[in-house]
Amino acid sequence: MSNKDVEIMENIYSENDRIAERIQKSLHEQGIYAINVMGAPGVGKTSSLIKLIKGLNGVKAYVIEGDIESDIDTKKLKALDIETVQINTGGACHLDGILIENTLNDLGLNEPGVLFIENIGNLVCPAEFNIGENCKMLITTVAEGDDKPYKYPLAFEKAAIILLNKIDLLPYLDFDMDYYIRGIRVLNPNAPIIKVSAKTGAGFDEVCEWIQSRM
Amino acid sequence: MSNKDVEIMENIYSENDRIAERIQKSLHEQGIYAINVMGAPGVGKTSSLIKLIKGLNGVKAYVIEGDIESDIDTKKLKALDIETVQINTGGACHLDGILIENTLNDLGLNEPGVLFIENIGNLVCPAEFNIGENCKMLITTVAEGDDKPYKYPLAFEKAAIILLNKIDLLPYLDFDMDYYIRGIRVLNPNAPIIKVSAKTGAGFDEVCEWIQSRM
Repeated sequence: MSNKDVEIMENIYSENDRIAERIQKSLHEQGIYAINVMGAPGVGKTSSLIKLIKGLNGVKAYVIEGDIESDIDTKKLKALDIETVQINTGGACHLDGILIENTLNDLGLNEPGVLFIENIGNLVCPAEFNIGENCKMLITTVAEGDDKPYKYPLAFEKAAIILLNKIDLLPYLDFDMDYYIRGIRVLNPNAPIIKVSAKTGAGFDEVCEWIQSRM
Repeated sequence: MSNKDVEIMENIYSENDRIAERIQKSLHEQGIYAINVMGAPGVGKTSSLIKLIKGLNGVKAYVIEGDIESDIDTKKLKALDIETVQINTGGACHLDGILIENTLNDLGLNEPGVLFIENIGNLVCPAEFNIGENCKMLITTVAEGDDKPYKYPLAFEKAAIILLNKIDLLPYLDFDMDYYIRGIRVLNPNAPIIKVSAKTGAGFDEVCEWIQSRM
């Protein structure tokens, strides 16, 4: 990239950060705790949200569902009476502050609670953009392999909590748990790493407790 | 994005296309057939390449290995005497023409054959950039779920061949094969969809035959 391109990219980042701060302030005033849910395609972001929202009973939950195309996940969530608004980016590889700010009104946040913002399925770009969240939750899976922290460090570094999903598949895979955890700890010494299965429900109690302790 | 930003993005795309054409011409003159290997993180791009290169015996094979960070996969390939050059993008979410052009000299393409360019693990951005390839190969997995063509259409649309990997895990997953294939066919009526397992080796003979028929 030329110097001019770099300058434009820096402007995009700093403008985004200003919008993200504005969103964060507004959500805080409304008593909303916002979680930016990141992960590669097919790691089980939506199915994990379903388990979490069920587990957080007594807590009002909202979802912003980010997808390039389709409203498959929004339909799933709405069928469970979860208040959900769809964002289709039509190609863009991450959510940003402008998209979220334009969407919040559609959600009608009428009581305090938790807002899950499901980002585009992408282990790279979403980690670079704040979208007004209180924290980032990263979902990875045993099926993706144990070397992901070494290859995609930024998402692991920025996560406040890391879910290792599809733990039910572990018997059928070669997954070195020590290697995976060591890779994360170099980048992120403190984030809880919680083994879960959105299929069996294992582990989500612990994630719910963590969320409630932060609200 | 402002009109100015859009204009800059268009310039980036058209400049990239010019470089990609130059690369393609140069590779063609050297008798090299280039395959841009795309897929989300952890779908088994490198392990598939190992099976393919073994299966393509008698064909000289080269690899350009794209990663944000780490040289884990390059080490794996070199240990098998496969000629490999690493590109670390240091954050960038896809390979582009400039990166490939700057790397080709390091490979020392001294005889005709096949060049696999393993893109960054990302089901979104790599599909937008030509890098001088003859065709794009998309690798997906049964573990990612059957709805991926509906959510990430561009990669499926642009692929000349689609591998459905980790077929050995099928007994342990809810994966609707018809739904997956129907989703692809709307976008891409003709690309072969080949079920493979980089763990057991199943299906790679068929992929090798397809590659040899195109060279």
